[in-house]
Amino acid sequence: MNLILLTEHDLITDEQVQLDDRRFQHIRMVHKPEVGAHLKVGMLNGLLGTGQVLALSDTAVTLQVSFHKTPPPPLPLTLLLALPRPKMLKRILQTVAAMGVKELYLINSYRVDKSYWGSPVLEKQIMEQLLLGLEQAGDSIMPQVHLRKRFKPFVEDELPHLVEGTRALIAHPYHAVPCPPAETTQTTLAIGPEGGFIPYEVEKLNEAGFKSIHIGERILRVENAVPALLSRLFPV
Amino acid sequence: MNLILLTEHDLITDEQVQLDDRRFQHIRMVHKPEVGAHLKVGMLNGLLGTGQVLALSDTAVTLQVSFHKTPPPPLPLTLLLALPRPKMLKRILQTVAAMGVKELYLINSYRVDKSYWGSPVLEKQIMEQLLLGLEQAGDSIMPQVHLRKRFKPFVEDELPHLVEGTRALIAHPYHAVPCPPAETTQTTLAIGPEGGFIPYEVEKLNEAGFKSIHIGERILRVENAVPALLSRLFPV
Repeated sequence: MNLILLTEHDLITDEQVQLDDRRFQHIRMVHKPEVGAHLKVGMLNGLLGTGQVLALSDTAVTLQVSFHKTPPPPLPLTLLLALPRPKMLKRILQTVAAMGVKELYLINSYRVDKSYWGSPVLEKQIMEQLLLGLEQAGDSIMPQVHLRKRFKPFVEDELPHLVEGTRALIAHPYHAVPCPPAETTQTTLAIGPEGGFIPYEVEKLNEAGFKSIHIGERILRVENAVPALLSRLFPV
Repeated sequence: MNLILLTEHDLITDEQVQLDDRRFQHIRMVHKPEVGAHLKVGMLNGLLGTGQVLALSDTAVTLQVSFHKTPPPPLPLTLLLALPRPKMLKRILQTVAAMGVKELYLINSYRVDKSYWGSPVLEKQIMEQLLLGLEQAGDSIMPQVHLRKRFKPFVEDELPHLVEGTRALIAHPYHAVPCPPAETTQTTLAIGPEGGFIPYEVEKLNEAGFKSIHIGERILRVENAVPALLSRLFPV
């Protein structure tokens, strides 16, 4: 937790917050600040700033907060990701949030096991995992996550509007060109499930304007492909 | 398992192998091949090729194998990684192997918990985790892993020889320049523990010729920093 993320509900006055939950435990056990110390804080979907420790007890911490810094710039990206299995989904949500993705579509694909759509992670933990990623990276802007359980209507009806005017790419190592150089260009990137998109799905994405790219001969797991691709597609 | 990795011990004749272990289970449960089907195989530390299914029973599979393809090129990299906590170490070993790293030094650092050096993963599972990464990526060349429990003698006595003639970089976001562009240059990359190298360690690495680089404002976990950095430092 490199950043303590706050919401309006934490405010006890205009400039003070009191925390007694997970964030308090983390501050007490990991940061172990003296009274007077400064911690990095951020207002969820707002500015970053500092929180000075006013009081620290066994049950709560009180911070004097001020906000003055804009969060890191978002990636100019809409990411389409075939829904991963629940355990991997948790990590990927953290990764996506940590790396600055702000628009994530979790989509269906032939190789997505139907049971994944019933996972408790999807129902209850999306926000929690994204928060962990933001806290790690030092960002305050919550990504938007959209669930699309039906591939065909999504690709035919919604996707053409999403990709308009963007660099549209599928990470798909067959009949693919090497990943293009880093650019600050609005991009739509589709990443398939373990085992990849099936030919029909690739064809539909190609029809919607997506170009197949690869990042080498090696086949990476989705959890590695995501940081590898995002790192390569956008400049520092 | 995108590649079935074999060793000389699996050979029952010059061109046939019989498998009855984890690899057999994977072939039976995931590939579910007919007799006559072709699977991708590789000889550990040798060539890639194909294995044609000659027989498949409830207890074993017999393959007719031939080897004709060189494995993907290795990254021109020596990676120094502060020893991660055991659970993360398993994933990182897979990642490192999958991405084509062939020389890995697991090193000590002030922020590496001493208990990590006693982890059973280090004693018994390094090879196993690396194999999983190779099988995933479709590579046959086992990385070399070196353990260095003492930071100072390693950095002072051994590191100068390792970095000679290489591009030497620390992923350390303070007083850092942006990550240099992708190049097929022999590189030595040092990545610190969660929380980063301490100033003394950065200083020692600087003295050994390492330059601090960053890949943006966001602070990434080691498991994301590794693929993000490797992807950025080397061309496809």
